[in-house]
Amino acid sequence: MALDVGVLGYRFMGKAHSNAMARLPMFFPDAPEINREVLVGRDEEALSEAADRLGFARTTTDPSEAIESVDAFYNLGPNFVHPEYSIEALEAGVPVFCEKPLAPTVEEAEEMTDAYREAGVPAGCAFNYRFVPAIRYAKGLIEDGELGEIYHVRGRYLQDWLVDPEAEWSWRNDEELAGSGALGDLGAHTIDLARFLVGEQAGEISEITGQLRTFTDERPTGDGETREVTVDDAYLATAEFEGGAVGSFEASRNANGRKNDHTIEIEGSKGSLTFSLERLNELGYKREGSRGFETILVTDGDDPYIDHWWPPGHVIGWEHTFVHENYEFLSAVEEDDEFEPSFEDGLATQRVLAAIQESDENGQRVSLD
Amino acid sequence: MALDVGVLGYRFMGKAHSNAMARLPMFFPDAPEINREVLVGRDEEALSEAADRLGFARTTTDPSEAIESVDAFYNLGPNFVHPEYSIEALEAGVPVFCEKPLAPTVEEAEEMTDAYREAGVPAGCAFNYRFVPAIRYAKGLIEDGELGEIYHVRGRYLQDWLVDPEAEWSWRNDEELAGSGALGDLGAHTIDLARFLVGEQAGEISEITGQLRTFTDERPTGDGETREVTVDDAYLATAEFEGGAVGSFEASRNANGRKNDHTIEIEGSKGSLTFSLERLNELGYKREGSRGFETILVTDGDDPYIDHWWPPGHVIGWEHTFVHENYEFLSAVEEDDEFEPSFEDGLATQRVLAAIQESDENGQRVSLD
Amino acid sequence: MALDVGVLGYRFMGKAHSNAMARLPMFFPDAPEINREVLVGRDEEALSEAADRLGFARTTTDPSEAIESVDAFYNLGPNFVHPEYSIEALEAGVPVFCEKPLAPTVEEAEEMTDAYREAGVPAGCAFNYRFVPAIRYAKGLIEDGELGEIYHVRGRYLQDWLVDPEAEWSWRNDEELAGSGALGDLGAHTIDLARFLVGEQAGEISEITGQLRTFTDERPTGDGETREVTVDDAYLATAEFEGGAVGSFEASRNANGRKNDHTIEIEGSKGSLTFSLERLNELGYKREGSRGFETILVTDGDDPYIDHWWPPGHVIGWEHTFVHENYEFLSAVEEDDEFEPSFEDGLATQRVLAAIQESDENGQRVSLD
Amino acid sequence: MALDVGVLGYRFMGKAHSNAMARLPMFFPDAPEINREVLVGRDEEALSEAADRLGFARTTTDPSEAIESVDAFYNLGPNFVHPEYSIEALEAGVPVFCEKPLAPTVEEAEEMTDAYREAGVPAGCAFNYRFVPAIRYAKGLIEDGELGEIYHVRGRYLQDWLVDPEAEWSWRNDEELAGSGALGDLGAHTIDLARFLVGEQAGEISEITGQLRTFTDERPTGDGETREVTVDDAYLATAEFEGGAVGSFEASRNANGRKNDHTIEIEGSKGSLTFSLERLNELGYKREGSRGFETILVTDGDDPYIDHWWPPGHVIGWEHTFVHENYEFLSAVEEDDEFEPSFEDGLATQRVLAAIQESDENGQRVSLD
Repeated sequence: MALDVGVLGYRFMGKAHSNAMARLPMFFPDAPEINREVLVGRDEEALSEAADRLGFARTTTDPSEAIESVDAFYNLGPNFVHPEYSIEALEAGVPVFCEKPLAPTVEEAEEMTDAYREAGVPAGCAFNYRFVPAIRYAKGLIEDGELGEIYHVRGRYLQDWLVDPEAEWSWRNDEELAGSGALGDLGAHTIDLARFLVGEQAGEISEITGQLRTFTDERPTGDGETREVTVDDAYLATAEFEGGAVGSFEASRNANGRKNDHTIEIEGSKGSLTFSLERLNELGYKREGSRGFETILVTDGDDPYIDHWWPPGHVIGWEHTFVHENYEFLSAVEEDDEFEPSFEDGLATQRVLAAIQESDENGQRVSLD
Repeated sequence: MALDVGVLGYRFMGKAHSNAMARLPMFFPDAPEINREVLVGRDEEALSEAADRLGFARTTTDPSEAIESVDAFYNLGPNFVHPEYSIEALEAGVPVFCEKPLAPTVEEAEEMTDAYREAGVPAGCAFNYRFVPAIRYAKGLIEDGELGEIYHVRGRYLQDWLVDPEAEWSWRNDEELAGSGALGDLGAHTIDLARFLVGEQAGEISEITGQLRTFTDERPTGDGETREVTVDDAYLATAEFEGGAVGSFEASRNANGRKNDHTIEIEGSKGSLTFSLERLNELGYKREGSRGFETILVTDGDDPYIDHWWPPGHVIGWEHTFVHENYEFLSAVEEDDEFEPSFEDGLATQRVLAAIQESDENGQRVSLD
Repeated sequence: MALDVGVLGYRFMGKAHSNAMARLPMFFPDAPEINREVLVGRDEEALSEAADRLGFARTTTDPSEAIESVDAFYNLGPNFVHPEYSIEALEAGVPVFCEKPLAPTVEEAEEMTDAYREAGVPAGCAFNYRFVPAIRYAKGLIEDGELGEIYHVRGRYLQDWLVDPEAEWSWRNDEELAGSGALGDLGAHTIDLARFLVGEQAGEISEITGQLRTFTDERPTGDGETREVTVDDAYLATAEFEGGAVGSFEASRNANGRKNDHTIEIEGSKGSLTFSLERLNELGYKREGSRGFETILVTDGDDPYIDHWWPPGHVIGWEHTFVHENYEFLSAVEEDDEFEPSFEDGLATQRVLAAIQESDENGQRVSLD
Repeated sequence: MALDVGVLGYRFMGKAHSNAMARLPMFFPDAPEINREVLVGRDEEALSEAADRLGFARTTTDPSEAIESVDAFYNLGPNFVHPEYSIEALEAGVPVFCEKPLAPTVEEAEEMTDAYREAGVPAGCAFNYRFVPAIRYAKGLIEDGELGEIYHVRGRYLQDWLVDPEAEWSWRNDEELAGSGALGDLGAHTIDLARFLVGEQAGEISEITGQLRTFTDERPTGDGETREVTVDDAYLATAEFEGGAVGSFEASRNANGRKNDHTIEIEGSKGSLTFSLERLNELGYKREGSRGFETILVTDGDDPYIDHWWPPGHVIGWEHTFVHENYEFLSAVEEDDEFEPSFEDGLATQRVLAAIQESDENGQRVSLD
């Protein structure tokens, strides 16, 4: 019995997840069989073209209709669409997979998480970097105590696609439509990775101080006018974890020369790790007793997920994280199992982002207890 | 009218090409429509399982039967299988795509190439690294004269999966079955890349000196016996190009710590380039007027093939080279167009490999005129 | 007429500066001639041995006596010794060169700076990293507008010599003796470099938020006892510059695997830079119109100070920064010229460090106006 | 009783060695006391200026006179000056330190080595890269068997100061004056390092094949004329060691973008190493049981020579290799001890270089038995 899947959204994320689903049978033969049943959107023409290309059986412009007819609902629309349809699906007992950040506000994220707790079905939040083999390998090292007590966590996500002040205004520059800027779009990934990697050893973030910055206040709209930019171009934060580790976090869309530099560094009493998304097959590892950071190509047969792919040294790409993520989520759906990162994780990250925003506004350290 | 495709071979290369074909519709919508029609092999059970997984309509153990029924034939079997069925297909007017190295001997490669010239249909040789975006971007720079006159070409392909003298004997250690060792398996890629990149500026390799080495003479067979290793573990060569450039080439399966280090470096009067397969999204470029090597992430929208994939900085993997390769080959088949690298290229590389072997044996520089 | 120089301190910094002075005649023939006249310390025996080795004509245990008899006084003692003898020298009209951080408190730093303003002679603060050729070259690029408007400044100084909780207690773990921990010892360098590099374009730091952390509360003393650690092992800070740039700063002595990783990164509207002390001959430069960071070996004949040393590619070391620093300071002394970094710079940095400490205590963003 | 030292040559190498001697007392207090007694050259004015700057007591234009009056004679003149005065000194029982390559021809190198054997005093050949701490640390690892059986040795020395075809002709482009080009100037260093590092495990080079190339046949002289270039711009070689390892070697002065890239890579059955002169404080080490190359900063207190310098992470420069070299040589002179690399080593390398040249000429592999 194949699972019928409905997907809201057919642009960047829609394509990434559709591709992931399409690749499961060849590489993850034990994944549940699925039908890409229905693609949801507003623009019928674009939707129809996308459904053809992405391999969906049919389309609809009515999310509720889709939700009723599927075994799993992917909510990949913009931020402000997340709460309503995620809750609707969960209330109907349909497992949900929702893009990050979970919601425009903590309150909405809480409502979504409440719905998840009530529903008793998987509700995943799309922190795909948890599914990078190097990251999972790193997580294993930390859990095995190879780093000892955690002292430092450092995360940054640098891009430069807004560095040109003349780059055109888009919905991503608007607070109403996008919720936030670099903080929500990039920072959410970093905070989640930090939680994922050191959560068990170092605990949650207990206090945080944050700062936002918009470097370009208004941008041209393309018709000779300019329009105000109402989201942040960059954020900075320093944090304390329950277990005593300290963390520093940063993201920017104005970091000239950086394309997708999501870098995580963790230092502990016994060892250290470093990872960068631009070289996602690699992990830097200072192990106990060694003299420096070792550059590990995490592509061996016994590395996480790698036995499904290619021989050692045959690197995988960014999109493979979605295949792993979908494999885990759809397996959980089929077996009615737990899936992580869940809405709980989405909510936890949302609270940290909100605290950063609060601290930016009031200039004070914010407690997260 | 979809193209019916037959594929001989269902292991590593069979999987890589089947995956590539499966991904074309979503990412290269203008690629010809194809049917994965028939999978060819000898072991019926394994074949049937593979056909299911790789998405083939049917199977056969008779290559000739397959050839008769398809619009394009992929010869992905071991080396010694290449000549017979490739020639059979070409004589039947069926376009062929053949794995590298083209044939066990230069003579057979010549026969295959003759058949190609007669047939007037595309016959491709599987040098997939020509389809790495960074390599194609490099090729463009060289063609545009950005490197000026070419002085140095350096290529090496280092792996370490045979570094353990106790690693078990396999068919890849046997000259009869494998043709050659590191030279044919890895060196073929390097020589082809060198020809591809600098051929127009520096001409062909005109003289070469070579050296082979087998570090481990016999290996355990798993049943308490040992068996002789009759192929090389490593080769070294130095060469001269028609235009005066010099080249040095090397490959090894005993290079401890190297997983898939296919590195190419080219230096010219105006600029230089460096590329490594383990970081295949990156190109090192010393441009005229700059002071050092620039690390370029070749993932921008206007980089070769990238507009089909993801936004800047979202890296692709090794397997994507096969998608590009299949896109080009199948498009050529449909439009009855030229495809490169063709059997001509396979033959040219084969001649260089043979000259290296000859030089190893007689201790003399070998002319390739 | 040679300058008589007196030096207080004969350990790490004493050796670094004595070596620098000794090398001037051979490499900077236009430097003023100097006598290493008198070495000042408390332990007569050790002092005498050091004077022999470091090439001083005589020794004294009385700083005041030394000050009276020299043309320039180097105050290289521990932090708490800085104010008294620096002020005494300046009041006597003797130029002073003082180690960093300038003083234990802002108040004392202000008094020292007042003395400097009154004295009208050079008073240098030992921020030697301003004299790394790559840093000076970077400064030139920024001044020439090659980076455009400054958006991001990122500085960190990571070491790991205290990562072992069993490492013995030393005076550097004591607030009374050392003033502060990583903040004063390492952070002072980072803050000064940030000011030096972007001060003219981005202005001074106007607001800052900080956090300190002591990971190991007490350490063994070697006699079976333990003693309290009263300084920080690490600090974190995020800042805003007058011109709108944002900065993040960090240092640690517990960053496992990092030996002397003083890394500075600056991103602007047109270009970006990156520098790390562990590779001090190199500068990473993303220039306008290029596609990535260029790795520049700053060892060409027209790079700052390099014509005094060796041909291109023949790298210099950490100690060379002291030669350049002494060359500039002693030249300023001889010609009664300005020297930077002066006590003004030392004071400015001290204020930033104090603001970080204040913010750590009260949990609030601190304004530096 | 201080050693009187005479030095022939006062340019690049004269400066490097004079500086090294000058630094010994402060950093190597157990080094023999020396007098920089006499500087030898032909141009009296330049010589006198140099003697002042480099700290020599007197000058002479008569090498024989100098040899008679010193306890050690440094022969740092151009290649063709090496045999005569080195032999004269050795015949007079005066220890000699001679620049590399040892002599213009193998025959002369043999005569020099004969003189050394007869004299029974130290005669050093200036392969200073043996004295890089990272290289000595590497040597220790190899001797301790940490790499196991040696399979691959790879050495290259790339520079780019002749990449511009319009760069002016100099004596270095002339065979009579310079002996050879990249082969003798750069290749000598590489061959010696290979011998030093793996000689005991892998034996000597037993067979070699070589190739020379002059990219620019004539160069402008500055007066509107051009003059023929009679030396090589680049060499390539592949070799076999007695123990079965293979080696590839290369050097160029036309390698655009490379300043002083002397890179050595060694791979063995248990581990591997990589080193580059442009980052001379670092060693790449793949150790048994690890998963990748570790980047080691060879600046710890127990690393070779480092206890004489600065704390961990405070990097040293190219010139420090000369201090170590002089320390060892002068200590050997004082104690009438062995010094390595001696003229024996200079001769062994000379033979390899000659074999490369012979192979280039006759197109055949050359045996070195």
